[in-house]
Amino acid sequence: MNDSATLAAFLAACRETLGAAHVLTDPHDTAPYLTDWRRRYTGAACAVLRPASSEEVAALVRLAVAHRVALVPQGGNTGLAGGATPDTSGTQAVVSLARMNRVRAIDTHNNTITVEAGVVLAQVQASALEAGRLFPLSLAAEGSCTIGGNLATNAGGTGVLRYGNTRELCLGLEVVTPQGEIWDGLRGLRKDNTGYDLRDLYIGAEGTLGIITAAVMKLHPLPAARVTALAGLASPHAALDFLALAQRYAGPLLTGFELMSEFCLKLVGRHFPQLRYPFDAPHAQTVLLELSDSESEAHARSLFERMMEAAIEEGLVEDAVVAENLSQTRAFWDLREHIPLAQAEEGLNIKNDIAVPISSIGRFIEETDAAIAAAVPGARMVTFGHLGDGNLHYNVQAPEGGDPKAFLAAHQSALNRIVNDNVHRHRGSISAEHGLGQLKIDEAARYKSPVEVALMRAVKTALDPLGLMNPGKVLR
Amino acid sequence: MNDSATLAAFLAACRETLGAAHVLTDPHDTAPYLTDWRRRYTGAACAVLRPASSEEVAALVRLAVAHRVALVPQGGNTGLAGGATPDTSGTQAVVSLARMNRVRAIDTHNNTITVEAGVVLAQVQASALEAGRLFPLSLAAEGSCTIGGNLATNAGGTGVLRYGNTRELCLGLEVVTPQGEIWDGLRGLRKDNTGYDLRDLYIGAEGTLGIITAAVMKLHPLPAARVTALAGLASPHAALDFLALAQRYAGPLLTGFELMSEFCLKLVGRHFPQLRYPFDAPHAQTVLLELSDSESEAHARSLFERMMEAAIEEGLVEDAVVAENLSQTRAFWDLREHIPLAQAEEGLNIKNDIAVPISSIGRFIEETDAAIAAAVPGARMVTFGHLGDGNLHYNVQAPEGGDPKAFLAAHQSALNRIVNDNVHRHRGSISAEHGLGQLKIDEAARYKSPVEVALMRAVKTALDPLGLMNPGKVLR
Repeated sequence: MNDSATLAAFLAACRETLGAAHVLTDPHDTAPYLTDWRRRYTGAACAVLRPASSEEVAALVRLAVAHRVALVPQGGNTGLAGGATPDTSGTQAVVSLARMNRVRAIDTHNNTITVEAGVVLAQVQASALEAGRLFPLSLAAEGSCTIGGNLATNAGGTGVLRYGNTRELCLGLEVVTPQGEIWDGLRGLRKDNTGYDLRDLYIGAEGTLGIITAAVMKLHPLPAARVTALAGLASPHAALDFLALAQRYAGPLLTGFELMSEFCLKLVGRHFPQLRYPFDAPHAQTVLLELSDSESEAHARSLFERMMEAAIEEGLVEDAVVAENLSQTRAFWDLREHIPLAQAEEGLNIKNDIAVPISSIGRFIEETDAAIAAAVPGARMVTFGHLGDGNLHYNVQAPEGGDPKAFLAAHQSALNRIVNDNVHRHRGSISAEHGLGQLKIDEAARYKSPVEVALMRAVKTALDPLGLMNPGKVLR
Repeated sequence: MNDSATLAAFLAACRETLGAAHVLTDPHDTAPYLTDWRRRYTGAACAVLRPASSEEVAALVRLAVAHRVALVPQGGNTGLAGGATPDTSGTQAVVSLARMNRVRAIDTHNNTITVEAGVVLAQVQASALEAGRLFPLSLAAEGSCTIGGNLATNAGGTGVLRYGNTRELCLGLEVVTPQGEIWDGLRGLRKDNTGYDLRDLYIGAEGTLGIITAAVMKLHPLPAARVTALAGLASPHAALDFLALAQRYAGPLLTGFELMSEFCLKLVGRHFPQLRYPFDAPHAQTVLLELSDSESEAHARSLFERMMEAAIEEGLVEDAVVAENLSQTRAFWDLREHIPLAQAEEGLNIKNDIAVPISSIGRFIEETDAAIAAAVPGARMVTFGHLGDGNLHYNVQAPEGGDPKAFLAAHQSALNRIVNDNVHRHRGSISAEHGLGQLKIDEAARYKSPVEVALMRAVKTALDPLGLMNPGKVLR
């Protein structure tokens, strides 16, 4: 709600602070920042601001306060919920952290890396590797997403079973508060009980409580070998029992446990026939397992063989194959990673990123499948995900031969309601790893208790009384 | 600041709510709740309230709000910082969670246990074990401390290297807010990105933001074997390099890495001569290692042997011995656990529970030792702790033959200042695992930045505007 004179004064002050080259206002320059990754949202902005240091971020926030301009922090702009896209008013300013891309320090004895918010995730991984360490956060967008965005959304990915979400990988933060002060919480400590856990309050807050400018992240020892295996099973229930068995055999060496339904792999076979399903006959469910072994590949393979033998003997697994070498390991992961691509080839579809207690997954799938089949006969469920985390991508494709666009237009909101209602019944999460952004803000409000919403609002109002930090995200 | 009529009305309403038997006012009955474990603090209370359910806790909080009575939540009363002891005014009420001691559910497929706040830690461990799972939180007071207290103080203990602090073991909470509402955050999810992380805000807040009444805690697979070893080394620096080597060899199987200085073990030898140090000659530093192996004891022993061989070859370890059996494993832990007892036998001493980045531990010890030797010639440093967590118990004993009481009276605050100043220089924590309570509240304020104190105060004021939740703890 700013008049143009105020905005002009704000922009002039920003140019003074950053230099004119880093205050983008030309539509050609700002366009890449104004549409989200999935192209669901296109906003407008009075400017895209590109600070190079925490001090510059702090100065910008103080200017925003003085001129009452709302700020939308942005990392690699790969978010899946529109959390980094401004509204359409043209009065908000995007703060891109892309120029804050220094690795400040690596401490191999402390197993930590200190990075600025704009460092691309793949660069964090590469820097760790160079120092002989593992930074285990890994997800599809890793070549362009930034660690600041990962923190703001508490990103998940494929390593959560063993290493946790981004939250569990963070020891300390530097944050610019909504008052334009720098909170130096860059501690590299495993233990620190000296007051409220501000770090975890900022993680996952999607930029609505302040702007994360740097972080101390945990590193892990590099495993000596990673080996994968595939197992064919009769049902999600069998997969749950198999998970318990695999954890008993492998303990913390088990770093991946991904479930894929028969229809998922049928779609992959249809659209990527060069990817080979290694079993002779299809199985109702296929599990991809990964072991990260600190000893050797031979040790991991032998552990897998014992585990699979026991699982077959107990009647949990119908058939199993352990990857013979690195290229077969890659080929197994390829099957898993091509599911979303095969879905895209098959046509537009409805996506859900949900979590339920692991023990409920079998029942959840059965119940939701039945409810959807009743609502839209022929709708095809594409169910896969991180079973070990209770996180399913429960997606729905139009009936065979149906028109995907018409299907979405007619059924998307009703089917989302069916899925989310059942998630809620199982005390699950309607957004397991993608956050709320602007996409799921109303759905979240629908399922959260008034007590929880009131607590969240109290925190928001206390820390950002002017409401200038990424308004319209997380909370309305 | 309550007049006696208000207090009487409050107590009458409490009796109405809980039944008179659970509103203790007789000094004989209340005494055990009014002095802390270390006998540093003795408070007074208008009553000790013993609710049996979350609804009763909520009702008590609403009565406290109506009558403006401050509440001090208490679990097993084993805290080391006076966080559960009321002030001396006699106007506060202690809320004991001891009657809320039900295990509500165990879910082996989800690897979770849902417990009420008053369940004793050892009972949580036993319930998990009965279900074939490990609840890894373990600490000296486990026979009487409660899980609610562990959560309120984010307790550490001996399993942090692999399993994390209490914070990392908690998936969901039930909390009674300062308004007397029940927040049902009892989620058993590994992934949930739907808003602010209220759970972690309550964990470690020591009852100043609300009263934790129940929690969903993570369980782990039971390891097949736990094996320990001792290694003799020349310096803390060598221990750091050895830690990196051990993590490379054992990855997540390494569950313990405890450092003990020569003087620690000399004290143990003096006061507990039946405990045998297994090496022929003393070493400047001794490390106790623990492996938790999902395969077998034989596998763990063979892994230890390869690790120790490499460490001796690299010149990091002077001598090493792997426990032959369970009783030797016990004997090695006995050495470690008798250090505080040997200290007590030797006489009163100054205790510090600090953390620094692991990489700084060698320098921290050298510098602090030198500064203390300069300040009090002959003072004897008893340095041991969880090296793998960067957490040291850096204690100081009077010079040989000196009077411990006089030593403490003369030097305690000056020596604490030396230790904490150096902790601060290394960006460490002055309370790694014990919390602030009332004991360290001023020290914490001394080292925290004004920005951080202001953020903490904003959160406190937003959630507890009347200041009735455990006032005088964490923040003044």
